[in-house]
Amino acid sequence: MINSGALTPSDKKSIEENAEILLADTPVIMDVAYTAKKLKWAASTWAGVETLIKEIGKEKPPSFTITRMGGAFNRFMAEYVLGYVLTKERSIIEVAKDQEQRMWNKKKYSHYRSLTDLTIGILGVGEIGQEVARLCNASGMTVIGVTRSQPSEEKRCPAVSQYRTTSELAEVLRDSDYVCNILPSTPETRGLLSGDMFSHCRPKKSVFINMGRGDVIDEQSLVKAIREGWICGAVLDVFQTEPLPEESPLWNLPGVIITPHIAGVCLTNQVAENFVENYKLYCENKPLKFQVDFQRGY
Amino acid sequence: MINSGALTPSDKKSIEENAEILLADTPVIMDVAYTAKKLKWAASTWAGVETLIKEIGKEKPPSFTITRMGGAFNRFMAEYVLGYVLTKERSIIEVAKDQEQRMWNKKKYSHYRSLTDLTIGILGVGEIGQEVARLCNASGMTVIGVTRSQPSEEKRCPAVSQYRTTSELAEVLRDSDYVCNILPSTPETRGLLSGDMFSHCRPKKSVFINMGRGDVIDEQSLVKAIREGWICGAVLDVFQTEPLPEESPLWNLPGVIITPHIAGVCLTNQVAENFVENYKLYCENKPLKFQVDFQRGY
Repeated sequence: MINSGALTPSDKKSIEENAEILLADTPVIMDVAYTAKKLKWAASTWAGVETLIKEIGKEKPPSFTITRMGGAFNRFMAEYVLGYVLTKERSIIEVAKDQEQRMWNKKKYSHYRSLTDLTIGILGVGEIGQEVARLCNASGMTVIGVTRSQPSEEKRCPAVSQYRTTSELAEVLRDSDYVCNILPSTPETRGLLSGDMFSHCRPKKSVFINMGRGDVIDEQSLVKAIREGWICGAVLDVFQTEPLPEESPLWNLPGVIITPHIAGVCLTNQVAENFVENYKLYCENKPLKFQVDFQRGY
Repeated sequence: MINSGALTPSDKKSIEENAEILLADTPVIMDVAYTAKKLKWAASTWAGVETLIKEIGKEKPPSFTITRMGGAFNRFMAEYVLGYVLTKERSIIEVAKDQEQRMWNKKKYSHYRSLTDLTIGILGVGEIGQEVARLCNASGMTVIGVTRSQPSEEKRCPAVSQYRTTSELAEVLRDSDYVCNILPSTPETRGLLSGDMFSHCRPKKSVFINMGRGDVIDEQSLVKAIREGWICGAVLDVFQTEPLPEESPLWNLPGVIITPHIAGVCLTNQVAENFVENYKLYCENKPLKFQVDFQRGY
């Protein structure tokens, strides 16, 4: 396994001449995409693949199979959502600030909702979205799943109580206390929540949780949605530019929580487990899991 | 329903002369405990009843049945536990403090555990404890339940994977990542975690969550356990004196989170639901739920 930045010229040459399988960060795969002679399978340690798709492009997909990381982050992503829903509902950050001042404000924090009263709309119900749905549902929330098209009966996740399509987004925003975006970055998802889309959140003053790629909404639209009071807050883990620039207005917008792209981390043993699972399939000549689809864009 | 502090002399007289059923805060019930002539059932809106038991005492239990609030808080208490477990595991308060400084520390927060890696020991597996067990288990944690004696097969909660007795407390502390106390205040539970008991937490450097009455541990013992590094933190919602005095060392002890007795609140509609449930039983002449047991002390 080769980390980005650690590829020496001799490593590169060796991969280009001999490697049949490559387990590496995306930049390393990009480096050898058209020069590797024997490569049949490149397993990226990254879950997001838009860099890869942008660089390599739809026109000239490489001759080998590329897989992305899958499975490993999903549980962490789901726990991030649950953790921040409870953080918002129970005013955990505000209570902690009071503690710094040795302030005991019992009445201020004695009104809250139970998870069983809450509905979460999940935009993107792939593997990560399904794991988020399962954990939210298991802990008492009602889940609305938003997909491109209505899934077939057998593809429905039992934790999702309603499926709606992206064309019904306005209604989903109207009905959800939390709106969680996990959509990958594709031409169809870019800017999906931009403009005045969040004005549909007005009835419930939802909280927006963004763990998907940062371009489903542009920053100006998000700032506007908060300032207009359409949404009552946001929990943001991904941004158009990372690290989030110091001058960004998001840092101290009321109700906005900024986390430094930590919703899902990739643990070494999970990368290994993921790879081993696919390696077995590879040896048995079966289709690999988590294949990058250059046509669909993820 | 009469709130404490709102009992006028004419109300009191009317209760004493006529009331068969009384739904009121504990102090109101105490006020008429030996003067109410026709009272058959007093439903307290409080979950904790030690004030009542202390004042009325084991020697002279009143002639009517007293029930306490039950059910209503349980879910809130459980969500408090889950919320603070995730707060600790995902460094939610530290990330929020970094945000105030516009600091992006991705690496610092990229190591954490999943709920599925964690074991929680729950001291007291009554109704609240069982709800905590169910939610923790549903969200992936392993639950050890601690009771006075091993429960019979049919009384076991399926969400509890192991039952242990209070005599095995040291082992429970050794095996738990989180230790959650929900024990009521009785002569047997008072000081149960005091002294050097928490030294058994050393192997896992557990986090102590206290939602039970504040006297299961004295403050000095808790401060010592933190300073010695036996436990790596605590989440405290109940205290020997409330509000927690400004001069208490607990306010700014490393790893200690103080909340102003807000783990469970009593919502009006839940008090009503609780009362209606028992009222039906009362009309059918069946045993009431949540009866105060003056012998056992809760």
